[in-house]
Amino acid sequence: MTFQKEKPSEDSLSLTFMALSDPTRRAILARLAQGEATVKELAEPFDVTLPAISKHLRVLKKAGLIIQGRKAQWRPCKIETKPLEEMSVWVEQYRHLWEARFDRLNDYLNTLQDEGDESP
Amino acid sequence: MTFQKEKPSEDSLSLTFMALSDPTRRAILARLAQGEATVKELAEPFDVTLPAISKHLRVLKKAGLIIQGRKAQWRPCKIETKPLEEMSVWVEQYRHLWEARFDRLNDYLNTLQDEGDESP
Repeated sequence: MTFQKEKPSEDSLSLTFMALSDPTRRAILARLAQGEATVKELAEPFDVTLPAISKHLRVLKKAGLIIQGRKAQWRPCKIETKPLEEMSVWVEQYRHLWEARFDRLNDYLNTLQDEGDESP
Repeated sequence: MTFQKEKPSEDSLSLTFMALSDPTRRAILARLAQGEATVKELAEPFDVTLPAISKHLRVLKKAGLIIQGRKAQWRPCKIETKPLEEMSVWVEQYRHLWEARFDRLNDYLNTLQDEGDESP
């Protein structure tokens, strides 16, 4: 039996979602939201090797979520927000769905309250 | 040389991002945002086989983004917004970063404008 692996999608939104589907990469991004950091600094809080961190950085770079300076010894990484902004626009189109759910719940709670007020 | 594949993360946010990293799965979700649909209806607009669609649905179900009814012949799929809401909360924490960028651009444009006003 052969197992056919799904080919990863290469459009920018797919690359962003793929890059964010790992908690270590999300933690790296959270760190970079505080300011620039070197690969060594980024690796410190994690129980992973430098090559493993470098691999995560490559995925984040491919998605355009970070950029890395070119100075040979000290190559600080920096967060880039454009893909996050694009993702935010994407998810906002669904907001009305969960807000509608809250509205229905609220209406229901108000009905219960009214019924309570009307009882003797 | 051996290539070690990254083990997919199984926390809910990672599963959501992974499920959304494919344009067909995002299109399925966009369709279900309009209302319930059967697997056959979901497959129609795509140039893929029913088993391929079923595989996409399994990924979306695992992430909790859709639920599927249990009626044997007609198992309509329905969107579930909780993971999208969680994702929205996650991305919102970065909004200040791109808004700060717009503010700086705006300040710069105002400076240019002021300089223009002051010239004879």
